[in-house]
Amino acid sequence: MEETVSDTRLDRQLRFVLETDRLNSVERQNILADGSRRENSAEHSWHLAMMAVLLEEHAPEGVALERVLRLVLVHDLVEIDAGDTFAFDATANLDKAEREQRAAERVFGLLPERQASELRSLWEEFEGVSTPEARFANAMDRLQPFLQNSCTQGGTWRIHNVSRAQVLKRQDPVRQYLPKIWPRVVEFVEKACANGWLRRE
Amino acid sequence: MEETVSDTRLDRQLRFVLETDRLNSVERQNILADGSRRENSAEHSWHLAMMAVLLEEHAPEGVALERVLRLVLVHDLVEIDAGDTFAFDATANLDKAEREQRAAERVFGLLPERQASELRSLWEEFEGVSTPEARFANAMDRLQPFLQNSCTQGGTWRIHNVSRAQVLKRQDPVRQYLPKIWPRVVEFVEKACANGWLRRE
Repeated sequence: MEETVSDTRLDRQLRFVLETDRLNSVERQNILADGSRRENSAEHSWHLAMMAVLLEEHAPEGVALERVLRLVLVHDLVEIDAGDTFAFDATANLDKAEREQRAAERVFGLLPERQASELRSLWEEFEGVSTPEARFANAMDRLQPFLQNSCTQGGTWRIHNVSRAQVLKRQDPVRQYLPKIWPRVVEFVEKACANGWLRRE
Repeated sequence: MEETVSDTRLDRQLRFVLETDRLNSVERQNILADGSRRENSAEHSWHLAMMAVLLEEHAPEGVALERVLRLVLVHDLVEIDAGDTFAFDATANLDKAEREQRAAERVFGLLPERQASELRSLWEEFEGVSTPEARFANAMDRLQPFLQNSCTQGGTWRIHNVSRAQVLKRQDPVRQYLPKIWPRVVEFVEKACANGWLRRE
C-alpha cells in the first residue's frame, strides 16, 4: 500500500516536471541582452535565480538564499496558463490577478496535495512581497529586464513609448530593497532619457 | 577608497549578470517536451533547479537544497564559450574538458576574484560529482533530457540512433543517486526499444 501511494506521488511529480517545461514557450515582451529575440519566462526565471546567487551580498541582512531561489524558480509558473502580462500594459493588468488565480488552481493542483500548497504559498509570498526574501526576489524581478533594456537602447521602453516616471515607479523595489544598486538605475534612466530611449514625460 | 572598490565590484557583478544572459543562446540537442524546438542551456538550467525543488524528498538524506540549486544554476555557464557538447557525440567529447577549462578561465574570471573562485568551485564540484549535492544534481542533469525524450518518441535517441546500452550507462547516476526513480527509467527504456525509438543493440 505504501508502495502504491509512493508510486502515485512520484508519477504526479514527474508529470509536473514535464508540465513546467511549458514555461519555455511563454514569451515575454523583454528582449535578450544581445538584442537577438524576445525572452521566455523559463529563461527569465533562471536569470533571476542566477542574479540572486551573484548579488546575494547586496541583499538585506538575514535573507535566506534558499528561500529566495525557491521563490524565483516558482514565481512565473502560473504563466503556463495565464501568459506573461507586460508590466506597462494597463489593460492586460486589469484581469491579471484573476487569470493568475485560475492558473494557480489548475497548475499547482497537478501536484500531490501538500506539495501543491507549498508551491502555491511560494507564489503567494512572492506576489505579496510579504517577507525579506520576497522583497529581494521582487527587486531582482524588476532589475533583470531593466538591465536587458540597458543593453538594447531602451528595449521595451522605446518600443512601447514608456516614460521616465513609469520606469522609476516600476523600479521602486530596487530603491527600497537593493539600495546599493539604486544609483546605477537612476544613472541609466537619465542616460536613456538623454538618448531618447525613454520619454522624459 | 572603500566606495571605489565597492563600485568596481558591483560593476563587475552587473556586467557578469549580462554576460550570463548569453546562456540563452547556447542551443542543446535536446528537444522540448512539446516537440516544438530545441532547448537552450539557460532553460535546461532552470528546469534542473525546478526539478531539484520538486524532487527534493527523493534526494539522499542530508543533501542541502541550497547548494544543489547553486550547482545546477552555475553548471553550464562555461557553455557560453564552449557550447553544449552532446552526450552521445564521441568526437566532440574528446576535447570537451579542454574547451571548458579555457571557458571557465575567461567566464568566471570576469567576476571579482573571490567570487570567481567560489563560482568556479561550484562548477568543479558539479563536474567532479564529489559531494552528495553534486551527485543529486548530476542525477537530475541526466534525468531531465530523459524525461523530454520520453515525451517526444525518443527525441534525440531516435535522431542520433542511440542504443539501449548507451542510455542505461548515461542514466547510471539516476540508478545510483535517485534509486526510487530508477524503475521508471528502466520501464521507459524498454518501451522505447519496443517502439523502435531506441536501438536494442
